Amino acid sequence: MKLGDGVEQAIHCMLMLSGLSADSAMPATALAEYHGVSPSYLLKHLQALAGAGLLASVPGPRGGYRLGRAAEKISLLDVVVALEGAAPAFRCSEIRQRGPDPLAAKFFAKPCGVTAAMLKAERAYRDELRKVSIAELAGNPGTELGNAIEGRSCAFRERHERRPAAR
Amino acid sequence: MKLGDGVEQAIHCMLMLSGLSADSAMPATALAEYHGVSPSYLLKHLQALAGAGLLASVPGPRGGYRLGRAAEKISLLDVVVALEGAAPAFRCSEIRQRGPDPLAAKFFAKPCGVTAAMLKAERAYRDELRKVSIAELAGNPGTELGNAIEGRSCAFRERHERRPAAR
Repeated sequence: MKLGDGVEQAIHCMLMLSGLSADSAMPATALAEYHGVSPSYLLKHLQALAGAGLLASVPGPRGGYRLGRAAEKISLLDVVVALEGAAPAFRCSEIRQRGPDPLAAKFFAKPCGVTAAMLKAERAYRDELRKVSIAELAGNPGTELGNAIEGRSCAFRERHERRPAAR
Repeated sequence: MKLGDGVEQAIHCMLMLSGLSADSAMPATALAEYHGVSPSYLLKHLQALAGAGLLASVPGPRGGYRLGRAAEKISLLDVVVALEGAAPAFRCSEIRQRGPDPLAAKFFAKPCGVTAAMLKAERAYRDELRKVSIAELAGNPGTELGNAIEGRSCAFRERHERRPAAR
């Protein structure tokens, strides 16, 4: 079982975007540069996040991406589902219905015990991911590390944030 | 995120083998027939289970597979890890260390908050899988379905179980 590399990239991009000032956006090329990843590969993930409403895409020369809703309302589960799909990792093929002398159809109304146990574990996984928001992960507790991260990302944002044109 | 088809096949094979009488074995071809799956594909999974000690391989014309230890001591987590490997689904590539103006190396001794949160969710998943044993899933609560399953698998075992030669 393996999550795609895109999950790590996506979460770190969301963290960077959570620090933008209101109405600003950051182009995909800057996000790729900051994280040292391939822009074309990252773009695919950013588009998936936008498709799920987690990012908003701002068109035009001052455009780029920003969060699609408040960082408090975006969980790690939202990001994982946007990139990996909502289907459970365990996919029951009803193997119990194959082979010789199958049981009567009436017995297959309910999922079998194997599926039930596997899906229960996946619910526990998803419940944990649902508890953690982008806002929480971005939180800076004033530690030396927190300050260093904030300093680095702030300086980068200063250079690459695109603000809306003054009216 | 997706588990291989082998996980479902492996768990159902373990359930079948948990009903064998002592010292008996069942050939891989019979296990494949019962579950309506490709014998060569199934064999790969049975070998992985045997490699992890969850199955014992009995050589010779009366050979086949049997459980490698008591069904009470084989959990769903054991089966998933034997087939899918022990590595977590989320694999941190330390993306935070890439890009321009990296932070000082001293900050990277600890995993970042993203990794910690993702691994916490995986622990919850594994804890659930660890709780469920093959013995528990094989348990027949005397329901109509339980009796039907037991009748079908018993009849099949009768025909395909290979007992050790009388001495």
